[in-house]
Amino acid sequence: MTRRVWRLAKRPVGDIADDDLHFVTETMPELADGEFAVWVNYLSLDPTNRIWMSDMEQYMPPVGLGDPMRGGVVGRVIASRKEGVSEGQLMAGLGEWADIVVSRGEGMAPMPEIPGISVAAAFGTFGVVGPTAYFGLLDIGQPKPGETLVVGAAAGGVGQIVGQIGKLKGCRVIGIAGGADKCRYIVDELGFDAAIDYKAEDVGAALDRLAPDGVDINFEQVGGPIMEAVVSRMKLFGRMPLCGMISGYNATSNAEPRGFWTLMLMRRLTVRGFIVTDFAPRFGEAFRDLAGWMLGGQVKTRQDIRPGLEHARDSVKLLYSGGNFGKLLVEVTPE
Amino acid sequence: MTRRVWRLAKRPVGDIADDDLHFVTETMPELADGEFAVWVNYLSLDPTNRIWMSDMEQYMPPVGLGDPMRGGVVGRVIASRKEGVSEGQLMAGLGEWADIVVSRGEGMAPMPEIPGISVAAAFGTFGVVGPTAYFGLLDIGQPKPGETLVVGAAAGGVGQIVGQIGKLKGCRVIGIAGGADKCRYIVDELGFDAAIDYKAEDVGAALDRLAPDGVDINFEQVGGPIMEAVVSRMKLFGRMPLCGMISGYNATSNAEPRGFWTLMLMRRLTVRGFIVTDFAPRFGEAFRDLAGWMLGGQVKTRQDIRPGLEHARDSVKLLYSGGNFGKLLVEVTPE
Repeated sequence: MTRRVWRLAKRPVGDIADDDLHFVTETMPELADGEFAVWVNYLSLDPTNRIWMSDMEQYMPPVGLGDPMRGGVVGRVIASRKEGVSEGQLMAGLGEWADIVVSRGEGMAPMPEIPGISVAAAFGTFGVVGPTAYFGLLDIGQPKPGETLVVGAAAGGVGQIVGQIGKLKGCRVIGIAGGADKCRYIVDELGFDAAIDYKAEDVGAALDRLAPDGVDINFEQVGGPIMEAVVSRMKLFGRMPLCGMISGYNATSNAEPRGFWTLMLMRRLTVRGFIVTDFAPRFGEAFRDLAGWMLGGQVKTRQDIRPGLEHARDSVKLLYSGGNFGKLLVEVTPE
Repeated sequence: MTRRVWRLAKRPVGDIADDDLHFVTETMPELADGEFAVWVNYLSLDPTNRIWMSDMEQYMPPVGLGDPMRGGVVGRVIASRKEGVSEGQLMAGLGEWADIVVSRGEGMAPMPEIPGISVAAAFGTFGVVGPTAYFGLLDIGQPKPGETLVVGAAAGGVGQIVGQIGKLKGCRVIGIAGGADKCRYIVDELGFDAAIDYKAEDVGAALDRLAPDGVDINFEQVGGPIMEAVVSRMKLFGRMPLCGMISGYNATSNAEPRGFWTLMLMRRLTVRGFIVTDFAPRFGEAFRDLAGWMLGGQVKTRQDIRPGLEHARDSVKLLYSGGNFGKLLVEVTPE
């Protein structure tokens, strides 16, 4: 039995280069006791992948050189030597960039199959981005009716859900995205109140026009000058769930946004960094609410599905150039 | 009837200069309906005074040019045309740098007289610094037994109380202060676990020695390189009540500490700016607990009382040079 897998060969410097990741076909050993094998349907590509490739300070160990690249996967069990895990079961969780993933079950859980929601949509929503949006916005952002919520990378996996939950909670929602198509989508299809095309207009000037009284909640995923434009316009007692800063992930020199400590003091802002796994014990809450909202048509999610595991290295780069439109997935084998 | 009062003549540039504030004797008009007059015993000098003198972004309007300088005061009512306020009553709150303050009661409240606690100690503890320490540490810092708490300006008004409440909550408390006397005081008299003399040793190296596993709570009052040394050593899920950054208040160029956004994300820190008045509706909680702790000998507070309203301008400068030792008060007229 063989599998195809991406292994990390070198740590990228700046943009991911072709020889940083090697795509290899390798023979698999037989399953050991307690292991099971998943035939992967979809691989989730997420901004944090670039962090895992690096050896910067991060929230879990970086991927080791020579090791399979880490990633979220969903697929069906094709063989199991683990009690409680049976063939045919749909499993999702932390796996590898591979077409077959062997697991002992750590970081993996059965994925419920919800009638009316495809595996891609369910995985692309519940896998990582849904709980990220849900807990980041609700627990940290604490949205209240009438407040102004700004979310960057608004047409991406997390952003689209953040904005829609914000609307459900009565916020005025402004999304920041790159390009007219994405901006039209988040307003016309997802119901955001306004969109700012950061490729076409100055974000600060647009915020001054769209939110002249300032911003109550900044759901931060972007970093860089866009983040500085939003933070400098935050209101008294504003909240900032700090989810990521993708604009800096490929930087070769210091991309840290400047300090806003005085502003944070005078306006009594709360800034809180978080990683979705911090909320793992409470994922059930997010799944329940999100499934209800999806079935009720209140939350729509768009997946950007790129076929072919062999293209995963090129596909992941889309995240850092703003090339994806919706949650980025690789179709490894059809559902 | 005349009073003596400090008026703001110019906004200081850098350190407070002699002609920024003028000390004048002026005739007082008769009390209007709804007003009362307080014979001031003590004037509270606080780091934020320098902010009020400036026109930087701040949490209440700056003192207007030509206006009496704003400050916390305590004293007895000598005349009243306000219902419910009677002569002889001890009142404390937001007043002016003056020996007689006329008020309509906004920001002023009767101060309870607690047997065994002098007016100076009560005002120097309950007036501003006690609630600041109490809510900043307990509400924002959320101390848990065994955690490591670091507090700068540790022999100052707020710092001394923060550290002692931290001990009551079971924290390991490290204070940062300037000079051997202050360091000895916070350890030997107040029961801090350790002190770092920032004038004699490198704060980062001292923290590496005293808190090799890092810092759970940074009660921030100082800013500058000391703040950077502490923040860079914070632990996973650390909290940072952001109370002030005194080291930058006299700066003429940008004194903003650098951004630590990536660290805040990866370590999931919570940073929250606050001003004590945000908690005004809950001050009773702080007064009750602090009074109990003071009477029980668990919290001691030291006042640094400087006689003479005429020296207030020189006395306030002590805050920015680290010249005070304990809560800085001006004795305007004896108790």
